[in-house]
Amino acid sequence: MRFEEAYSGNVFIKSHPNYNESQAVIYGMPMDWTVSYRPGSRFGPQRIREVSIGLEEYSPYLDRELDDVKYFDAGDIPLPFGNAQKSLDLIEGFIRQLLQDGKVPVGMGGEHLVSWPVMKAVSAKYDDLAIIHMDAHTDLRTSYEGEPLSHSTPIRKIAEHIGPNNVYSFGIRSGMKEEFDWAKENGMQIAKFEVLEPLKKVLPTLKGRPVYVTIDIDVLDPAHAPGTGTVDCGGITSRELLASIHAIAASGVNVVGFDLVEVAPIYDTSEQTANTASKLLREMILGWIK
Amino acid sequence: MRFEEAYSGNVFIKSHPNYNESQAVIYGMPMDWTVSYRPGSRFGPQRIREVSIGLEEYSPYLDRELDDVKYFDAGDIPLPFGNAQKSLDLIEGFIRQLLQDGKVPVGMGGEHLVSWPVMKAVSAKYDDLAIIHMDAHTDLRTSYEGEPLSHSTPIRKIAEHIGPNNVYSFGIRSGMKEEFDWAKENGMQIAKFEVLEPLKKVLPTLKGRPVYVTIDIDVLDPAHAPGTGTVDCGGITSRELLASIHAIAASGVNVVGFDLVEVAPIYDTSEQTANTASKLLREMILGWIK
Amino acid sequence: MRFEEAYSGNVFIKSHPNYNESQAVIYGMPMDWTVSYRPGSRFGPQRIREVSIGLEEYSPYLDRELDDVKYFDAGDIPLPFGNAQKSLDLIEGFIRQLLQDGKVPVGMGGEHLVSWPVMKAVSAKYDDLAIIHMDAHTDLRTSYEGEPLSHSTPIRKIAEHIGPNNVYSFGIRSGMKEEFDWAKENGMQIAKFEVLEPLKKVLPTLKGRPVYVTIDIDVLDPAHAPGTGTVDCGGITSRELLASIHAIAASGVNVVGFDLVEVAPIYDTSEQTANTASKLLREMILGWIK
Amino acid sequence: MRFEEAYSGNVFIKSHPNYNESQAVIYGMPMDWTVSYRPGSRFGPQRIREVSIGLEEYSPYLDRELDDVKYFDAGDIPLPFGNAQKSLDLIEGFIRQLLQDGKVPVGMGGEHLVSWPVMKAVSAKYDDLAIIHMDAHTDLRTSYEGEPLSHSTPIRKIAEHIGPNNVYSFGIRSGMKEEFDWAKENGMQIAKFEVLEPLKKVLPTLKGRPVYVTIDIDVLDPAHAPGTGTVDCGGITSRELLASIHAIAASGVNVVGFDLVEVAPIYDTSEQTANTASKLLREMILGWIK
Amino acid sequence: MRFEEAYSGNVFIKSHPNYNESQAVIYGMPMDWTVSYRPGSRFGPQRIREVSIGLEEYSPYLDRELDDVKYFDAGDIPLPFGNAQKSLDLIEGFIRQLLQDGKVPVGMGGEHLVSWPVMKAVSAKYDDLAIIHMDAHTDLRTSYEGEPLSHSTPIRKIAEHIGPNNVYSFGIRSGMKEEFDWAKENGMQIAKFEVLEPLKKVLPTLKGRPVYVTIDIDVLDPAHAPGTGTVDCGGITSRELLASIHAIAASGVNVVGFDLVEVAPIYDTSEQTANTASKLLREMILGWIK
Amino acid sequence: MRFEEAYSGNVFIKSHPNYNESQAVIYGMPMDWTVSYRPGSRFGPQRIREVSIGLEEYSPYLDRELDDVKYFDAGDIPLPFGNAQKSLDLIEGFIRQLLQDGKVPVGMGGEHLVSWPVMKAVSAKYDDLAIIHMDAHTDLRTSYEGEPLSHSTPIRKIAEHIGPNNVYSFGIRSGMKEEFDWAKENGMQIAKFEVLEPLKKVLPTLKGRPVYVTIDIDVLDPAHAPGTGTVDCGGITSRELLASIHAIAASGVNVVGFDLVEVAPIYDTSEQTANTASKLLREMILGWIK
Repeated sequence: MRFEEAYSGNVFIKSHPNYNESQAVIYGMPMDWTVSYRPGSRFGPQRIREVSIGLEEYSPYLDRELDDVKYFDAGDIPLPFGNAQKSLDLIEGFIRQLLQDGKVPVGMGGEHLVSWPVMKAVSAKYDDLAIIHMDAHTDLRTSYEGEPLSHSTPIRKIAEHIGPNNVYSFGIRSGMKEEFDWAKENGMQIAKFEVLEPLKKVLPTLKGRPVYVTIDIDVLDPAHAPGTGTVDCGGITSRELLASIHAIAASGVNVVGFDLVEVAPIYDTSEQTANTASKLLREMILGWIK
Repeated sequence: MRFEEAYSGNVFIKSHPNYNESQAVIYGMPMDWTVSYRPGSRFGPQRIREVSIGLEEYSPYLDRELDDVKYFDAGDIPLPFGNAQKSLDLIEGFIRQLLQDGKVPVGMGGEHLVSWPVMKAVSAKYDDLAIIHMDAHTDLRTSYEGEPLSHSTPIRKIAEHIGPNNVYSFGIRSGMKEEFDWAKENGMQIAKFEVLEPLKKVLPTLKGRPVYVTIDIDVLDPAHAPGTGTVDCGGITSRELLASIHAIAASGVNVVGFDLVEVAPIYDTSEQTANTASKLLREMILGWIK
Repeated sequence: MRFEEAYSGNVFIKSHPNYNESQAVIYGMPMDWTVSYRPGSRFGPQRIREVSIGLEEYSPYLDRELDDVKYFDAGDIPLPFGNAQKSLDLIEGFIRQLLQDGKVPVGMGGEHLVSWPVMKAVSAKYDDLAIIHMDAHTDLRTSYEGEPLSHSTPIRKIAEHIGPNNVYSFGIRSGMKEEFDWAKENGMQIAKFEVLEPLKKVLPTLKGRPVYVTIDIDVLDPAHAPGTGTVDCGGITSRELLASIHAIAASGVNVVGFDLVEVAPIYDTSEQTANTASKLLREMILGWIK
Repeated sequence: MRFEEAYSGNVFIKSHPNYNESQAVIYGMPMDWTVSYRPGSRFGPQRIREVSIGLEEYSPYLDRELDDVKYFDAGDIPLPFGNAQKSLDLIEGFIRQLLQDGKVPVGMGGEHLVSWPVMKAVSAKYDDLAIIHMDAHTDLRTSYEGEPLSHSTPIRKIAEHIGPNNVYSFGIRSGMKEEFDWAKENGMQIAKFEVLEPLKKVLPTLKGRPVYVTIDIDVLDPAHAPGTGTVDCGGITSRELLASIHAIAASGVNVVGFDLVEVAPIYDTSEQTANTASKLLREMILGWIK
Repeated sequence: MRFEEAYSGNVFIKSHPNYNESQAVIYGMPMDWTVSYRPGSRFGPQRIREVSIGLEEYSPYLDRELDDVKYFDAGDIPLPFGNAQKSLDLIEGFIRQLLQDGKVPVGMGGEHLVSWPVMKAVSAKYDDLAIIHMDAHTDLRTSYEGEPLSHSTPIRKIAEHIGPNNVYSFGIRSGMKEEFDWAKENGMQIAKFEVLEPLKKVLPTLKGRPVYVTIDIDVLDPAHAPGTGTVDCGGITSRELLASIHAIAASGVNVVGFDLVEVAPIYDTSEQTANTASKLLREMILGWIK
Repeated sequence: MRFEEAYSGNVFIKSHPNYNESQAVIYGMPMDWTVSYRPGSRFGPQRIREVSIGLEEYSPYLDRELDDVKYFDAGDIPLPFGNAQKSLDLIEGFIRQLLQDGKVPVGMGGEHLVSWPVMKAVSAKYDDLAIIHMDAHTDLRTSYEGEPLSHSTPIRKIAEHIGPNNVYSFGIRSGMKEEFDWAKENGMQIAKFEVLEPLKKVLPTLKGRPVYVTIDIDVLDPAHAPGTGTVDCGGITSRELLASIHAIAASGVNVVGFDLVEVAPIYDTSEQTANTASKLLREMILGWIK
C-alpha cells in the first residue's frame, strides 16, 4: 500500500513524510480532458508543488506556521488520459479511502469536474454537508454540447445530490441564463461578482456545520490569475480571496475538505498563478485545519 | 447540410449572417503603422474574434443575451500597409456606407488613429454629436515628430472638428503639458485618472444626445490589459470599466457608434487582453444597442 | 457588394467557396484529450488557417499555384470534449461522407489518434491501401496505461486493420522495445531516424497503389517544430520533410488522403510550427492532388 | 553635427549629459547572485532605461516636467559576477563619491542586497537618517542558509547599523516569524499589507529629517509587477504605490537618496514591470528632488 | 574620470567613439510600417546592440579581432512613424552623407524596404555596382495590394535601377510566379533554396567589382531565426550563412556596404535571433572591411 | 545519512530508490552566480528531471533500456547562493564521497564552473584521466574581469591540473585569441566547430583510459538548445551530438564520470532544451555505464 511509505516525488513544502501521522492529505488530480476551451491544468498540481519551495512557512496573516499542521503529500492520482468516467471513479475511490482513514482531503486540480467525485464522497460521510463554491462560472450545466461529464457541470451535480439549498456560490460572473434561473428556482444562493461581503453574511448561518470549500482559481481576475483555462475579466483580487479564506477560518464552520482547481501554468510565463495558488493553499491549510 | 453553403469562419460570436437584417456592424481596422512605440494591434480584431468563442452569450450584469441584438461581422477592412492617409480614407468610406444603411458601427482597432475617420463620418450624420473617450493618453497632439497622422492625435482632430466642448475624456494619466493646457483653454473636459465617478457626473448632461464612445484598452491598468502598445501603470480595473459601460447603458444617452482599440495580442501570452476586449464588446453591444 | 453574402472568415488560404465543385476537403479535428503529455493540439487547425494568410500561393518547388487545385475548407469538426470514442465516431462518419462524395480528405490535427478513424474509413473504400507514416514515435501501443483509446495507438490499430505489411513508418526515433519488436515480427517496415532515403526505396514498390499519408509534425526536430506535445530531439529538418513530400509527388503513387497532426501552438511563441504546417500543407495539396 | 560627438545611447529618458551640472545621479547595480529563488534582476536597469523612451516627460500627477530636474545617468556599475562582497564594496565606494560630490543617489537594482552598501554610505553622511522601506518581504534575516550576504538581509543590516527605530517598513506580507518578532522586540515599525495609510501616519513624524527610500518592486501585487524574482500575491496596486510616492513628496521629509530594486524583465513578456518601474522613477525624481 | 564625459550607452560592441577616425559606420533603420504580416523589426537594431555585449571580440573563423576595424555606431536614424516615403528620403540622405565622408555603411533593419534607399545611394557612388541578396523571398514585386512602397519590393526597385543582370539573389524559397518569371525574362539570377554553393559559382565573376550585400535574416530557417516577421521553413542553417559570409570575404570582391534586416525580437523569447544577428555582423565587419 | 534513504523529490525517470545498490548517482549542481551573461541554469536540473517523465525508457539507438542500469538520484546539492568558493568546496566533497563509494558521478548543471571541482575530485582517483569537453566556448580564461572563479575558467583549471595534453575540446566556436593561443602553445587539442569527425579521430588514442566527459549544452546550435545562458549560432545539431555520444559508447574508452551543464529553462518556452537534455542523459547513461 503506497500510503505506508513516503511518496517519492515533488512535494508541497513542509509535507509530512508519514501518512498515518498526518491530519490531512494533499493530492493532485491532473485531469483536463473535458475542458471546452484551453487545456493544461493537468500540470497545475506539479507546478504548484514546485514553486511552493519559494513560500515562507509562516503566515503573518494568521500568525501560524506550516509546522503546526501535519499533511501528507500523496502525489498526483494516476488518471487515464481522455477517459473522464474512469478518472472520476478513481478519484472518488481515492477520497473514500482518505475519509475512512480520517484525513482531511486537500485537492489540487486539474479541471473543475474533478471536484464532483470528491464532493460526492465527502457528502457520503457528512450528513449535513454544505458547499462553499468560489468561481467565475456557475458550473451548473447538465451537459456541455451533449456531454454530461463536462467541466461546466460539477456544481449542478453536487447541488442535485445534496440539495441546491446547501450550495453557496460566490463571485460568479459568467453562465447561461438557464443556469442562473435554475439556481433561483431551486433555492440555491449565487452571489454575483463579489465574494467577501456576501460570504460574511452566509458564514454565521453555517456555524458548526461541515463545509467543503471548492475554489476555481478563475474567481480571481485574470490580472491575478492569468494561468487558467478560461480568463474572464471583472474578477476579484487576490487580496479579497485571501480575506475570504481568513473569514472562513474565523467563522466557526467546520471545513472537512477543500480544493483549488484550474491552474494551467503554460498560459502564465511569470508563474504568478502557480505561486498564488501555493500561497492560497498555505493559508487554507493554516486557517482551516485546526 | 452545411457543405452547401460557404464556411462561416472566424467571426465575433453570435454574429448575424445577414447584413441587411442587422442593426449593427462589427468590423476590424487592422492598422498599426503610425504607432510610436510597440506595433502589433493590427492583429487585435482577429484575435478578439477568435477568443470570443469562449464567451458566454448571456450577460449576468445586464440580464440580456447576444441573440437579443442583430449584428453582422464584416471582417477586417483591407488596408494598405504603411499608407496612413489612404487607410483613413478607406475607413471613412466604409463607415459612411454603414451609416447610410442605418447600421450602428462597432469598430475594433488597430491603433487609435483609426477612430478619427470613424468619428468624422459619424459627426457628419449627427449634428449634436458628443464624444466619450476613455484612455490612458490625451491623444491631443497636433503631430508626432512632425507627422500629423499619428496615433497621438485622433482626439485633437475630432475635438477641433466638432468643438472641444463636445469631447469628454476619462481616465487620462499621460500626456504632454501642452495637451492638458490646450484642453483647459478650449473648454474640453478631461477627467484625470478616474473613469466611473466623473462619468456619472457627465452622463446626465448628455441625456438624449447622440454619443460616440471610443475606448483605448490602455485605459485599463497593464495588470488588466498587458497586451497593448503602450503599457502605463496606474490605470483602472476591468471592474471599473465594466461598471462604466453599464453606467452609459443606464444613462439614457443615445450611443450611435463605438469602438475599442489598441489590443496588441503578441505582448500577452495569457491572452487575457483579447478575452477582456471580447467581453467588453459583449457588454457594449448588449448595453448600448437597444 | 460583399455585404450581401456571408463573411468568409478564417479558412485555409485560397479555399474554394463551394463544396460540390471541390476536389478535396480540408478540415480540422480539434481533439487532444488522450495525449499523455502536453495538450493543446486542439488549437492547431485554427492557428494553421490563421497563419496561412502569410503563405505565398505559388510553390517554387513544384511550379504550381494554389488556384490549380480546388479544395473546400469545412472548418473544424465539432467534437465532444473529453469523450474519445464519440469523437472518433464523429470523425469516421464525416470522412465516410467525404469519400462518398468523391473528395480527397485533407486533415489537420489534433492529436494523432484522430488519424485512426480517418484511415479506417479510407481503407473501407480502397482495397489495396498502403499507409505512409512519418513520425518521431512508433504509435504502436495497444493501450496506454490501460486505455485502448490513446494517442500512442493509431498506427497499431490501422496496422492490425489492413495488415502490418501495408504500413510504412519513417523517421521513428522513440518507442518501447515491444513496439519495435512487434513491427519486426509482423512484417511492418520501420525506417528509424531517417525519412527521405528510406522513402525513396519504398516508393517504387507502391507505384499506382492508393496511399494514405499521415504525418506527425514531431517527425521534425524540435528545432523545426517546437510547438507540439512531445518534443524529441534528433529529428529531421523541414528541408528533408519538404523533399520527402516532393518525392511522393514525383513517385506515381496515388495519394487518396492525408493529414498533418499534433501542432500545438501554445508552446511556440514564434509561431514557426503553425507556419511550417501551413507551408507543408500547401506543398502536399499542390504535389499530391492532381 | 551629431557625428562629431560620442553617441549617447541607452540612458534614462531626459538624463542630463553633464555630471558636474547635475543634482542627482541615476545608476544601475546589476547584481543578482545572492537571490535564493529566481535570478535575472541584473538586467533590470538596462531594460528600465530602454523602455523609459516610451514615457511622457510630464507628470499630470505632480504638474512637473523632467526638464525641471537635472540628473546624470552614470550607467551600470561594473560588478564582478558571483562575488558578493567585492560587489558591495564597489557599490559603497561609488556612492561615497556621489555623496562627496553633492549628488542625490538614484539607484536601480538588481537584487535588494545592493541597497545595503548604499544605505550605509548615506548614513555616514546624514546623522539622523531614517529609512522608508516598501517591500513584500521583511528582509530582516541575519543570514540565508548560512550566508550573511543574502538578498534576505539588507534591512536587518541597516536596522542594526542606524538603530531599528529609524527604519519603517511598509506593505510587508512575507517573512519568518523570527523576523517579525525581532522587529517588535527592537522597536522597528512594520506596517503589514498596507502602504499608503500607515505611511500617512508616519510621515508627519519624519518631517525635516533626512530620509532614504528603498522600494522593492515586489511590494506591488504580481498583477502589477510579474517581472520580479519572487512573486507573492496580496500586494498593493500601482495606484497605491504612486499615491505613496506622492504622499512622501508632499510631506516635507528630506529625501536624500532612493532606489527601486528587483525588476527581473525575463519573467514578464508584456514588459509592464519595466515600464512601471520607469514611471515610478519619473514620479520619484519629479516628486522628491526639489 | 568617467563622470566627466557623456555616458556611452547602448552601442554595438567595440564601436569606435570617433566618427571621423572610423572606416565604417553602423546605424539602425527602425522602420516596419509597410510589412504585410508581423511588425516589430523597428526594435531589431537596439536589441542587436544590446545583446552584442555577449559577443567575443575575436573570430576563430577569421582569426581577426574587432579592434582591427574602426567603426562608429551612429545610433538609429530617427524616422517618422507611418510615413514610408519620408522615411526612405531620410535614410537616403543619411547614406549619401556617409558615402561622401568615405565611410562604409553597415545597416541594421528594420524591414527590407529600408535597403532600397541605401542601395540607391550606394549605386550613385559606384558605377559598376553589383548586389548580392540573401533572402527567403524574391522581394521583386512592383507593389503590394496597390502600394509601391512595400517590404516586398526593394529588390525589384534596385534591379530596375542598376539593371537586373547586376543583382544576384540566393536562398530564395518564396515568391509569386510572376516574380520568378520577371527575373528569368530580365536576366536576373535567382539561386533557389541554396546560398553557399551557387554563391561560390558567382563570386569569381564579381572579383574586383564593388558589391553591396543585403541579407534578410529570414534566409535562415526559422529554426535559426524565429524572431522575424515572416517565418518560412526550408531555409539554410546559420552555419551555411556564416560560411557564405566567409566565402565573400575570401573572394576578392570589394564590399562597399552591407546590411542585415528583418530582425523582430518580440517573436523570439530566447533572443537567439538577435544574438545570431550580432555574430553575423561581427563576421561581416571582420571579413569584409579590410 | 541521507544516502541511505530514498530521496524525496522530483527524480530522473527510472532512478533506483537505493543508493547502495546503484552503480551511478545523478545529482544537480544548481549554481549560476558567476555567469557573465544570462543566469537561470540553477533551475536546469529540476526541470530536466520534471520533463524526463516524457522520455521513453528504451533507446532505439542503443537497443537498451533504463532498467538495465541502476542509478540513484541524489537530488540537488544544496549550495549557498552567491558564494562561489563555498559552493565549489561542497561539490568537491560530495563527489569525493561518491567516488569513495564506487559510484559513477552523473552531474547536471548549473553553470559550467561546477564541473571544475568534479573533475578535480575525479582526477584524484584516476591517475591517467583524460577529459573530453564539448562546448561552444573555450572556457580557458584564468579569470573574468578579475574574478578567478568564473564560468569562463573551468577547462583552464583542469587543464593546468592534469596537463593540457590530457584535455580534448570539441565544437569550440567562441573564445579570446589568447585562449586559442594558450591551447596551441601548451599542447591542448581544440577541434573548432565540429564534434563528431574530430572525436572519431581522438577516440582510438584514448582506448582503455579513464575519461571524464563534460558537455556544455551550448555546443548545440541555439536552434537545438535555445534555453541556455549564452546562445551562439553556428553550433552542431542534436543529431551530431547524439552520434558523438554513441561514438564514445562504442569506442572502448572507460567513462568514469560525466556531466551536462548550462540548461537554463526560462529562455525556452517550448521546453525543447530540457527535453533534449533529458534524452541526452538517457543516451549517456545507457551508452556509457556498462
